Amino acid sequence: MAKQVFKYVGQSVARVDGIEKVTGKAKFLGDLIVPGMLCGKILRSSYAHAKIVSIDTSKAEALQGVVAVLTAADIADLNAIYSGRPVIAMHKVCYVGEPVAAVAATEQAIAEEAAELIDVQYEELPTAVGIDAARAPGAALIHEGHSDNICSHESVARGSVQEAFAQSYLVVEDDFTFPMVYHYAMEPHAVIAHWNEDGVTVWSSAQHPFQVRNDIAKVFGVPTSRVRMVISYLGGGYGSKSYTKFEPLVVALARKAKAPVRVSNSVGESMLTVRRHAAKVRVKTGFKNDGAITAREAEIYLDTGAYDDNGPAVTIRAATRVLGPYRIPNILTHAYSVYTNSGSAGSFRAIGAPQVIFAGESQMDIAAMRLGMDAAELRLKNLLKKGEELRPGLKGIDADLHYGLKKLVVASQWKKSAKKKNKPVGLACAVTNAGATPVSVAMARLQSDGIVNILAGSTEMGQGVRTVLSQIAGEELTIPLDQIRVLGADTKVTPYDSSTGSSRSTTCMGNAVQGAARDLKKQLIAIATETFRVPQNQIKLQDGSLISGEARLTFKEALERRFGAGSGGELIGHGETTPAITDNKMPVFWEVGMGMVELDIDEDTGKVSIKRLISVADVGKAIHPEGCVGQEEGAAMMGIGHTLIEQMVYDASGNLLNPNLVDYRVPSFNDMPEDFHTVLVENQDGPGPYGVRGIGEGGLLSIAPAVCNALERATGVRIKDLPLTPERVWRALKDAKE
Amino acid sequence: MAKQVFKYVGQSVARVDGIEKVTGKAKFLGDLIVPGMLCGKILRSSYAHAKIVSIDTSKAEALQGVVAVLTAADIADLNAIYSGRPVIAMHKVCYVGEPVAAVAATEQAIAEEAAELIDVQYEELPTAVGIDAARAPGAALIHEGHSDNICSHESVARGSVQEAFAQSYLVVEDDFTFPMVYHYAMEPHAVIAHWNEDGVTVWSSAQHPFQVRNDIAKVFGVPTSRVRMVISYLGGGYGSKSYTKFEPLVVALARKAKAPVRVSNSVGESMLTVRRHAAKVRVKTGFKNDGAITAREAEIYLDTGAYDDNGPAVTIRAATRVLGPYRIPNILTHAYSVYTNSGSAGSFRAIGAPQVIFAGESQMDIAAMRLGMDAAELRLKNLLKKGEELRPGLKGIDADLHYGLKKLVVASQWKKSAKKKNKPVGLACAVTNAGATPVSVAMARLQSDGIVNILAGSTEMGQGVRTVLSQIAGEELTIPLDQIRVLGADTKVTPYDSSTGSSRSTTCMGNAVQGAARDLKKQLIAIATETFRVPQNQIKLQDGSLISGEARLTFKEALERRFGAGSGGELIGHGETTPAITDNKMPVFWEVGMGMVELDIDEDTGKVSIKRLISVADVGKAIHPEGCVGQEEGAAMMGIGHTLIEQMVYDASGNLLNPNLVDYRVPSFNDMPEDFHTVLVENQDGPGPYGVRGIGEGGLLSIAPAVCNALERATGVRIKDLPLTPERVWRALKDAKE
Repeated sequence: MAKQVFKYVGQSVARVDGIEKVTGKAKFLGDLIVPGMLCGKILRSSYAHAKIVSIDTSKAEALQGVVAVLTAADIADLNAIYSGRPVIAMHKVCYVGEPVAAVAATEQAIAEEAAELIDVQYEELPTAVGIDAARAPGAALIHEGHSDNICSHESVARGSVQEAFAQSYLVVEDDFTFPMVYHYAMEPHAVIAHWNEDGVTVWSSAQHPFQVRNDIAKVFGVPTSRVRMVISYLGGGYGSKSYTKFEPLVVALARKAKAPVRVSNSVGESMLTVRRHAAKVRVKTGFKNDGAITAREAEIYLDTGAYDDNGPAVTIRAATRVLGPYRIPNILTHAYSVYTNSGSAGSFRAIGAPQVIFAGESQMDIAAMRLGMDAAELRLKNLLKKGEELRPGLKGIDADLHYGLKKLVVASQWKKSAKKKNKPVGLACAVTNAGATPVSVAMARLQSDGIVNILAGSTEMGQGVRTVLSQIAGEELTIPLDQIRVLGADTKVTPYDSSTGSSRSTTCMGNAVQGAARDLKKQLIAIATETFRVPQNQIKLQDGSLISGEARLTFKEALERRFGAGSGGELIGHGETTPAITDNKMPVFWEVGMGMVELDIDEDTGKVSIKRLISVADVGKAIHPEGCVGQEEGAAMMGIGHTLIEQMVYDASGNLLNPNLVDYRVPSFNDMPEDFHTVLVENQDGPGPYGVRGIGEGGLLSIAPAVCNALERATGVRIKDLPLTPERVWRALKDAKE
Repeated sequence: MAKQVFKYVGQSVARVDGIEKVTGKAKFLGDLIVPGMLCGKILRSSYAHAKIVSIDTSKAEALQGVVAVLTAADIADLNAIYSGRPVIAMHKVCYVGEPVAAVAATEQAIAEEAAELIDVQYEELPTAVGIDAARAPGAALIHEGHSDNICSHESVARGSVQEAFAQSYLVVEDDFTFPMVYHYAMEPHAVIAHWNEDGVTVWSSAQHPFQVRNDIAKVFGVPTSRVRMVISYLGGGYGSKSYTKFEPLVVALARKAKAPVRVSNSVGESMLTVRRHAAKVRVKTGFKNDGAITAREAEIYLDTGAYDDNGPAVTIRAATRVLGPYRIPNILTHAYSVYTNSGSAGSFRAIGAPQVIFAGESQMDIAAMRLGMDAAELRLKNLLKKGEELRPGLKGIDADLHYGLKKLVVASQWKKSAKKKNKPVGLACAVTNAGATPVSVAMARLQSDGIVNILAGSTEMGQGVRTVLSQIAGEELTIPLDQIRVLGADTKVTPYDSSTGSSRSTTCMGNAVQGAARDLKKQLIAIATETFRVPQNQIKLQDGSLISGEARLTFKEALERRFGAGSGGELIGHGETTPAITDNKMPVFWEVGMGMVELDIDEDTGKVSIKRLISVADVGKAIHPEGCVGQEEGAAMMGIGHTLIEQMVYDASGNLLNPNLVDYRVPSFNDMPEDFHTVLVENQDGPGPYGVRGIGEGGLLSIAPAVCNALERATGVRIKDLPLTPERVWRALKDAKE
């Protein structure tokens, strides 16, 4: 097959939103002003677990400038539970920071003063903070009517692990813990809601506008098409803005205030709104003497906090993702999400993956040493081949994992490093069944000035989706990107898109946009066939014109042919992505993450840093290579965070002790490896346009295990708990010496 | 052919915008609040014709609360001329009320005070007020570089009128005048403009949002897709809100103020913004002794005011419309629009028609009496047959005029009345080549909650277009109207539509909406064929479901078949109207107007009133019968206005003397005929959906001539000048007696 030649695809073009962002003109939610808008403030519980005895709002309501005070009493008419949580605390509170009341006032200071004037009487209840406390016999029950604090359970089984372990040459079993971490998007959550005759309009920092729309419709009992979500640019998401957060609360407040209201979280409030699941993971794996994996058993507990959010989905993923990218004949995994008295955990870049892949990929090295095999060699032996099934019920692997791992081995000069005993190098690899939902609809509308408007409901949160969609449309229509305009997500304007998450937009929305552009192209060619009186196959698009031999028709001229000269008109193409994109088999694509690190270890202080990091991203096809590298490196930096630095610290009574950038540090440029390199694999074997597959999550999967593998290789010390703070490493080294 | 059975079409359903309008919830431009919006005031010329010597804005700018003062100096960078007028007066003013400067301030009172503080020095020039003054030898030239005050000229010719007159049995020649009248929509013009990084957003009481968008783009040199027009409900239009009025001025003011600005006209200001052309019409017609028309010659002068607006288009129409609905072998017409020192004339319900049809249809009765023929008989003899050509270059007549006139004769019991000598009855008939442009694009989007959003750029100005479009979509999709939502015109959201005017929306946009609904239907049926595994022809739509035998699939279920259960998604249908709708022949349709009146004449006071009015509207097919009758009767009332009551009075120095409802009276319920009846002709022979043709203008065409014809029949006095004020009638009767 002849190699396809691209003009816009595969080019690292300037971001279409670049100039407005660097010039500060881009509008984020905090920049919006809705006429008559009030300022909102949420009063949050100061107890981790308590009955609400009474709420007295009279002082607050009496304060000059207060328009409305919202409590559970105001939502009696609603279907008040969504994602397992109430719109506002009803009878009890289950975590410090849970919304108990909310105030709408003419000024922010008044709203905040009024919130303090609300008198809430609590009756404290025993707390269960952390997985162990919540699972302990006689632990306080966080939700009435439950027999324990298990929120959800998922199991994956194949064959008999017992028999397999019995027949194995080597069986290893280890316990790992993964810290509670926060996404730390630069922009905390913010919502503006306006309840009007027409329905509800909500401006929100939401990654999933259409899903939030549907939740609001359910909660308030209005038709979804009467709920309008308008999304500005987001200052980062990483999953923290997935699904519905406190939008329904703000809508209820606006409904009572009879005016638009904005509620903006502080960083601390956002850390209580959503975070990643802390985890305890036990993995047991059996091997033949040649290194072939015989069986894997896993028990996973995820700290999901007070309410479900999408903890159950995270649990489902974890139960599969713990299997890694390997051929495992016998499988038995159990994953549990556990209610605890803390803020809810939800989506976070690669849900349920880093926790379990840290465990599985650490254990692969533990086994390799016991087997006397090279870490890469052991992995290559067990890697799934393209088309092979990871487990029943899922689409076969659609990427060439061996090709990717060999790329990593070469690019990282692994063999040379591995020869040197004690050299602090380590690697890891992973594959995840992306959660991408294959439902996206897009439009391409050719305007009378020759501009093509792309209507796509994807949220631009910095990942560059508008740029990539412009490139796809430009490629199909042969027009430069300045003649294309991707409109922001607005559920009244842009067609349905299931979400912006799970690495799905380039593949799923990209496919819809490609379809829309091709539909538009078809209509243009139909006009040209009439004009030129030649069959379709003799017409081609080139530089925004329809060409047949010498004959040439610009898109604007084509519009005039259809609608008459100077009379306007427009052509509308639309395209869609449906489950048919992968013959109704899930996942839509497999996401690949592989990485190798070389460390600097200061044995005196225990400080570990990464001096070399090589990452392999199998992107199928890089629409925007720099963007892909940026995604991969950004993910890797997040991996460095939970590996070396980050941890949300709760005390026993459920108070978050480090809700700010001073006490909760994230990686900075000082933490960036000197030698930081990403290899893009482009076999064009993904399901998206031009063979693209989703990326952006895989990059963070290998960091933690690779670092711990390198640490052991260099020091003989295996650490199974993150993060690798200097203190933890120093103590481990010290204990080892004793 | 079997008679088609309709469910929603042909029903006088409740208006879809009824409840929000009667409950006061509907938003008009005056109800909108744009954040940070300033109040604007236009300083208008107090001279009809003068050089601007100097403008001193310093005092105004110094006033606390004034943000910007706009003068010609601020628009040097613009393509400042549109529709023949400048964005703001540049070197001279050409009418009393011409915008000379504008102020944007924090409060309306401040803007108005500031406007008064602007010191404009004028050097007066001789004026030319009215057609005669402007045409007089040595008349002041209103536009430099012109040799006279003729704005535009149109001529229609066929055969030789001279020879025909020479051979005619009877030749009649008469001079008529038609008054200067105003539309008097309840809502005066208003505009909000916001100049932002993204381009320009304009909220305007505009009938033609896309044309205004294009003008603004040209004036300010920005791409049209960077200009967004958002249209609320209009409080009436009647043509007064056609084309671009002062939107560019408000945009320029907002651009300078760096903030959104609203400018709202007073009634007086709107009367100076646009009006109907006053006219002087000379008509000469030849007849054979059997009444057959041999030739018609006409000379028409239209007072177009200071600037073109769309006077030239009105002139072009007048030159053809003076021919009436008759077979005329020899034709020579000349129509001229004349610049005068008064506010510009523009579109007004049935442009260029009432002036010339008053003349032509008055003359038909003059001739009938001279020929001793019955007025209906003479008309029937000369009426064009279906398919016959009125004049070269136009599509043949597409309506059965004889059928219509016979309907009128029967419904009005004409023969019985006509037998009685001196009975004050008169009739008239007309046909106009509608100016409807055949360019409309629409979308029908099926949402996941089963609601179908209709995206149509038509302006709802009270005529009921949203209701009619809902009926068409409901009919095609077999769903009740509460499951359909027609979104208002917003050039960012709704596809291109050339205008809301020329009676075009039901035919042209209706056709696009029907196409969009059918496209959606096709996609639904395609899903059903896969689901039911039967050929398309075995699937029908019924009550919002797809049916094949016993099998049934709701639209929502069809969506789920396509996109997966509970996963959202949407189907997008689109449709368009292009010149192909009538094989590129214009007009898209012929609009028919026929009416008969019976008068009450008080010979002592000269007061004439209409006690019986029968009107015939050939609608092709009535989508909403009550709506059609309302359109016809509303038009007739406007006809009563210019026939009996209305006239804008200018003094010689160009001051409008009656710029308000006290001094300029419009018909009220007291002026409504006791017996007021409309007959709908429904031969389904129009080009629109279900055979519809445009109406709403025809109803006012026959009133003036029918009234004057009835007056002569009763009193022997022929009046050729409107309006028939009591004084004018009393004097005419008195003169006749002497």
